[in-house]
Amino acid sequence: MGGQQQHGGTRHSVVFAVNGEKFEVSSVDPSTTLLEFLRYHTRFKSVKLGCGEGGCGACVVLLSKYNPELDQLEDFTISSCLTLLCSVNGCLITTSEGLGNSKTGFHPIHQRFAGFHASQCGFCTPGMCMSLFSALVDAEKTHRPEPPPGLSKLTISEAEKAIAGNLCRCTGYRPIADACKSFAADVDIEDLGINSFWAKGESKEVKISRLPPYKHNGELCRFPLFLKKENSSAMLLDVKGSWHSPISVQELRNVLESVEGSNQISSKLVAGNTGMGYYKEVEHYDKYIDIRYIPELSVIRRDQTGIEIGATVTISKAIEALKEETKEFHSEALMVFKKIAGHMEKIASRFIRNSASVGGNLVMAQRKHFPSDVATVLLGAGAMVNIMTGQKCEKLMLEEFLERPPLDSRSILLSVEIPCWDLTRNVTSETNSVLLFETYRAAPRPLGNALPHLNAAFLAEVSPCKTGDGIRVNNCRLAFGAFGTKHAIRARRVEEFLTGKVLNFGVLYEAIKLLRDSVVPEDGTSIPAYRSSLAVGFLYEFFGSLTEMKNGISRDWLCGYSNNVSLKDSHVQQNHKQFDESKVPTLLSSAEQVVQLSREYYPVGEPITKSGAALQASGEAIYVDDIPSPINCLYGAFIYSTKPLARIKGIEFKSESVPDVVTALLSYKDIPEGGQNIGSKTIFGSEPLFADELTRCAGQPVAFVVADSQKNADRAADVAVVDYEMGNLEPPILSVEEAVDRSSLFEVPSFLYPKPVGDISKGMNEADHRILAAEIKLGSQYYFYMETQTALAVPDEDNCLVVYSSIQCPESAHATIARCLGIPEHNVRVITRRVGGAFGGKAIKAMPVSISHM
Amino acid sequence: MGGQQQHGGTRHSVVFAVNGEKFEVSSVDPSTTLLEFLRYHTRFKSVKLGCGEGGCGACVVLLSKYNPELDQLEDFTISSCLTLLCSVNGCLITTSEGLGNSKTGFHPIHQRFAGFHASQCGFCTPGMCMSLFSALVDAEKTHRPEPPPGLSKLTISEAEKAIAGNLCRCTGYRPIADACKSFAADVDIEDLGINSFWAKGESKEVKISRLPPYKHNGELCRFPLFLKKENSSAMLLDVKGSWHSPISVQELRNVLESVEGSNQISSKLVAGNTGMGYYKEVEHYDKYIDIRYIPELSVIRRDQTGIEIGATVTISKAIEALKEETKEFHSEALMVFKKIAGHMEKIASRFIRNSASVGGNLVMAQRKHFPSDVATVLLGAGAMVNIMTGQKCEKLMLEEFLERPPLDSRSILLSVEIPCWDLTRNVTSETNSVLLFETYRAAPRPLGNALPHLNAAFLAEVSPCKTGDGIRVNNCRLAFGAFGTKHAIRARRVEEFLTGKVLNFGVLYEAIKLLRDSVVPEDGTSIPAYRSSLAVGFLYEFFGSLTEMKNGISRDWLCGYSNNVSLKDSHVQQNHKQFDESKVPTLLSSAEQVVQLSREYYPVGEPITKSGAALQASGEAIYVDDIPSPINCLYGAFIYSTKPLARIKGIEFKSESVPDVVTALLSYKDIPEGGQNIGSKTIFGSEPLFADELTRCAGQPVAFVVADSQKNADRAADVAVVDYEMGNLEPPILSVEEAVDRSSLFEVPSFLYPKPVGDISKGMNEADHRILAAEIKLGSQYYFYMETQTALAVPDEDNCLVVYSSIQCPESAHATIARCLGIPEHNVRVITRRVGGAFGGKAIKAMPVSISHM
Repeated sequence: MGGQQQHGGTRHSVVFAVNGEKFEVSSVDPSTTLLEFLRYHTRFKSVKLGCGEGGCGACVVLLSKYNPELDQLEDFTISSCLTLLCSVNGCLITTSEGLGNSKTGFHPIHQRFAGFHASQCGFCTPGMCMSLFSALVDAEKTHRPEPPPGLSKLTISEAEKAIAGNLCRCTGYRPIADACKSFAADVDIEDLGINSFWAKGESKEVKISRLPPYKHNGELCRFPLFLKKENSSAMLLDVKGSWHSPISVQELRNVLESVEGSNQISSKLVAGNTGMGYYKEVEHYDKYIDIRYIPELSVIRRDQTGIEIGATVTISKAIEALKEETKEFHSEALMVFKKIAGHMEKIASRFIRNSASVGGNLVMAQRKHFPSDVATVLLGAGAMVNIMTGQKCEKLMLEEFLERPPLDSRSILLSVEIPCWDLTRNVTSETNSVLLFETYRAAPRPLGNALPHLNAAFLAEVSPCKTGDGIRVNNCRLAFGAFGTKHAIRARRVEEFLTGKVLNFGVLYEAIKLLRDSVVPEDGTSIPAYRSSLAVGFLYEFFGSLTEMKNGISRDWLCGYSNNVSLKDSHVQQNHKQFDESKVPTLLSSAEQVVQLSREYYPVGEPITKSGAALQASGEAIYVDDIPSPINCLYGAFIYSTKPLARIKGIEFKSESVPDVVTALLSYKDIPEGGQNIGSKTIFGSEPLFADELTRCAGQPVAFVVADSQKNADRAADVAVVDYEMGNLEPPILSVEEAVDRSSLFEVPSFLYPKPVGDISKGMNEADHRILAAEIKLGSQYYFYMETQTALAVPDEDNCLVVYSSIQCPESAHATIARCLGIPEHNVRVITRRVGGAFGGKAIKAMPVSISHM
Repeated sequence: MGGQQQHGGTRHSVVFAVNGEKFEVSSVDPSTTLLEFLRYHTRFKSVKLGCGEGGCGACVVLLSKYNPELDQLEDFTISSCLTLLCSVNGCLITTSEGLGNSKTGFHPIHQRFAGFHASQCGFCTPGMCMSLFSALVDAEKTHRPEPPPGLSKLTISEAEKAIAGNLCRCTGYRPIADACKSFAADVDIEDLGINSFWAKGESKEVKISRLPPYKHNGELCRFPLFLKKENSSAMLLDVKGSWHSPISVQELRNVLESVEGSNQISSKLVAGNTGMGYYKEVEHYDKYIDIRYIPELSVIRRDQTGIEIGATVTISKAIEALKEETKEFHSEALMVFKKIAGHMEKIASRFIRNSASVGGNLVMAQRKHFPSDVATVLLGAGAMVNIMTGQKCEKLMLEEFLERPPLDSRSILLSVEIPCWDLTRNVTSETNSVLLFETYRAAPRPLGNALPHLNAAFLAEVSPCKTGDGIRVNNCRLAFGAFGTKHAIRARRVEEFLTGKVLNFGVLYEAIKLLRDSVVPEDGTSIPAYRSSLAVGFLYEFFGSLTEMKNGISRDWLCGYSNNVSLKDSHVQQNHKQFDESKVPTLLSSAEQVVQLSREYYPVGEPITKSGAALQASGEAIYVDDIPSPINCLYGAFIYSTKPLARIKGIEFKSESVPDVVTALLSYKDIPEGGQNIGSKTIFGSEPLFADELTRCAGQPVAFVVADSQKNADRAADVAVVDYEMGNLEPPILSVEEAVDRSSLFEVPSFLYPKPVGDISKGMNEADHRILAAEIKLGSQYYFYMETQTALAVPDEDNCLVVYSSIQCPESAHATIARCLGIPEHNVRVITRRVGGAFGGKAIKAMPVSISHM
């Protein structure tokens, strides 16, 4: 929120600070992300590129914004892989190196991550540290009592939630949670797992004293004076005509009209840019229009009719506003707002919600059928939207907005209005009626960046029958979304059917039958039956216990019921009345870690801190992609086959602007004389580096495009079009069954044949138990290492090469590279330093990556 | 020469080819040299930075220019360290990698340099190869008979001269000359030194057959088609308003006026830019005006009055024009022209003369007192200059031009006119008079880039006395220059004295006395007495043998004498009448290399080719500065003390534009905590890295300035001003004698004390001979390695460092770096790969360079 700043002029360069250090960038491709800038133009490489989608948290940094009017700092985490560089103008960025490092001393966060063995491959650790640090900063801002020495104001519950959305693939999270919880004022020190700080049997006080002490340090992310000055004379950013920050609706209109007038110019409205995590951007835009500085779009306004939330308000800010206790609203309205807020807290991760805007989410839902939670819960709550098209403004029900054709580029979503539900003021409501509101969501994970299989929001006005022997539905809104539908819908037929009915099993059964026809996933949606059944389950959960209620149902009981429902949301059913985050119980069940250490081979077996663990935490550990690239380094990206079995006729680029930056397009034809088209070598034989005339599977590398930057190489690979031909080819074999049918079998290497021991048939016959035949099918699984496959090849004298590779089998890469290039093995040196997760996935599949980088 | 091209428009990017590969540069600092571009923006790092003054030849490349009208290629060597990138627009550059390399196969030049052991440290070798290659290209253009198989059209004499100006500090040149001569059609194979091609005793034919065969290959430096197209639609270069190529005097005037109008804009006229080798450029210019495309300035015109040479004509082209045999001129005039040409061939090196302009040389002489040879010889020959100031043009005698105040920036030297000396047409001359003309030059080296201690040019009209008993000087011009004078002068008083005199020793003695008063080096000139004596010697050489001639001196004898004098110039006195470079005898005296190889330890002792020698020749060998710098690498330059003993009060930068690019200015105050101000460590103790409060000698490092590029760091160091204070300090000790006087002695380490053996006094007394005392003084000497001191430091994890250093003692650097930074030695890794010459100079003095790069 905060007042809009007065803008004093226009500035043409982006000015910001990283760990207190000033950076000024006057010439920048506006699509540059903060991550790209940090990794390629600063020494702060703690910021890791994991998924590039805001889904893993390896790139999390703390962003601090200064409000000169209030002289206040706002600090929150963001995904640097989605945040555009231009949007951090005037901000301070803190990375894990900024917390502490090997030169200035590590931060206790780093030390405790190390001591609790919470960093294995280490690739996720700096992001984890930043998420925890942000939680500590937030806790310090509360008015809670001073924590015991060495600890913080953080609660255990907050400590656990701090890293929600930060993925780790090595540790299983237990040690990370321990490291986080060790900062909590209310930590149960006995609950923490093995670590290198204390010995078994030491007292609680001694144990705490052995932790690297935490002391709130205002110096960290202290806002630099030069940036305060920047902000106090705040100027609008206008970078070489490619980044605009209009400060009024009129200015926005002017910019849009100027773009409209020219069909040469492509433009994009941006607030948090988090949508790019889902909709990978291949397109290049000429103009970016940052709409966060337009008052109408950043408003949060409460009045008796409800809450209006501007389109650019972040989901985090919306949650905060919706949670706010205020006398302005009736308790029923507050209940609805809080439930919406509670649901919104399950959307994506904290670091995404901190930049993602409510409006961006709704527009994606409307234009691109994004499986939005915001749309569903707001639809259930009867929200309205304000739309501007040119000079014209209109207010629509959200439902109508969603059903319209995709919003055109001239139309702007200004804000959303959530009505104030207050049955006492509703003249049409019966005086004894009660408002029920609940939201639902089923997703692969309860928290942390998982899209729902289905979501729902139900609002109902119910009252006890006048006869006192049942509950009547006076009115209801039943919204469902994200189940494989263009947009969130209301189950109108079910609503109509239920309206006026007294709830009983028969009624509910009929309703469910109707519902099955309303919630129908579109063709091609995965697990459709499960999704439909979720809708039924949620509806049953909402109405089920109100069914067949007979005697003595009063309004008071219903109100109690309504409160009770609200608590189902939190994972533990307790009877506290007031929401106090600091008192919410922990997410993790209790656990005890018992490790028996034999003293026989002492000191072997002693828990010691892994060498380099603190460096991993501070982000100073150097992974392949952190090795400074040589000047004029070229970058490559694979083009993969999309057809399992096809002839490759050629490769072209869709976009005309691409070939300029492309230095080479390598395919099997470019294997040097004397070399072989070999991409990996295993005990089962070798695999080709590139598909030759025929592709052998979908996902097989077809070519390797080389460009002046990784971004350009990736983009070129994205817009490459492979021309396939499938005439006269048999259909591809896509399952084991087909392979057996068509006798297409790999030969099993003889060393894998089991040696027969004894007479198997005889043994089987004599056995007490018989073998029963059964069939089990295992789906495929991703290795899912956090660090992507990476290699850096540096040519050296006399046709020698040094290849840095994140590989588990450098010795195989070594031989394979030499064979592929047709050079002696002694000309090749493969160096593996750190591997940011592997799980077998970097044993074989890292080889083609190393080879292609030659 | 060649006609002026028609210019079709303006082009805003520099387009050229390197080894056939296209480069297009649209945004460039116009002060960027070709060397900077090649080394920092291409992979062609064979081009080495040695002296940066055009004085060593390590950066020599072949430049090919296409003339679309004549469909002809001109190929010549240039110093890439002085050539501005913008001036190679439209040209093809060939580097040693372009001749051949480890991937495509080495060129026979590379192979023979390797086989003749002509590459030791290898730093000079690529430049050597290019100079030889250029000579081969020139020879192939002649109409000489086809050479024997495997050899070229080159002559031995040309082969030897090919590398004049390319310095080598390791080999002593013998093996290099052998490698060059091995290509000559007229090679005496027995004259070539040891090599790894043939065995002793093999026949001449077999030996030749064992040489890697040379075959003229038109493919090398074949002009690329795309560049031909560029040239045929030749466009003028105008790079972002900072590089202009006017094509007429009027356009030049316009540009100059626009510059004149603004005192904000600094500008510079450029032709070959070779002057920068002598006058290091600290200044940055806003505009460069390339005047090579203005017809009036690039003219070479002959008429009956003489030869007019445009100011931008290169010295090489001027030599060519002056040497041309033409019926147009009387033999006397031709003699004068050829002598001027012969003298000009001793100026700088071939690769400098190929770009240096006649006008640039004269303007430097006039404005900046450059010790010019051109000015002296033209003054002796009675040349005139054409000057343009605004709309006004005037013709001046060269003498008057030199005596004027420095040419202002509005005035342009257009051309120089050398008169046609033809006494037969001179009505005032006596009919039996003869013209004598001679030029002289004394320099540290006869050929190859050495400024003269003194030069002279004498022209005299003499005739036999009517009495027949002596020679009368009818007229004379005696020009002297470069002896420590503002500009070349005529010894007027001597001229006047001699005019009309019959030559005898008395007359000559008087003339010499007068000359001593005329040729007086300015205060501060080194070896002034030697310089004056040279003037006397040259005058005596010119007139001496004509003195005291008595009987029967005829005009014919004088003409013969005149011819004879002309031959003194060439180093061997033979009686050939016609100049034919291919028949000029070789420069090197005959030599025989006898190496007795013992077979006792066979194969030890066998001459084998050094591993990597061919890589050194092709320029693929990687020296420290060839290691690709990491992205965002910082570059440093030392600021040295100019005072031997002074207090340092502070350091500032003269130029206001500098501090922007300066990242840090490090001095002893920046030694990290726990570290020491230590720069080197020897058996005699350690030396500080930086001067602390007091400087200890002139040349001591005071600070290290760090910037975003080497150029900017060098520039910042150049404009840095150290504020010294010398109050209350004793005078510095500058000689051994002063040190002894003031008892300021270093302690001799005990291990250096000689152990007394026997009774020295007794032995001395009993000895047959007595020791006589004498004093000998040795001046200082430069180590003079070709590769400058270089180090590259790459920070690694956990405060570790990898330092690549061109050092002879990596083990000492290793320890010293650790002590300076206060880190454990195991955190430091020092890697020495190749050392481009050292001679002890990279034992100790490379250490501070390695350390400062931390």
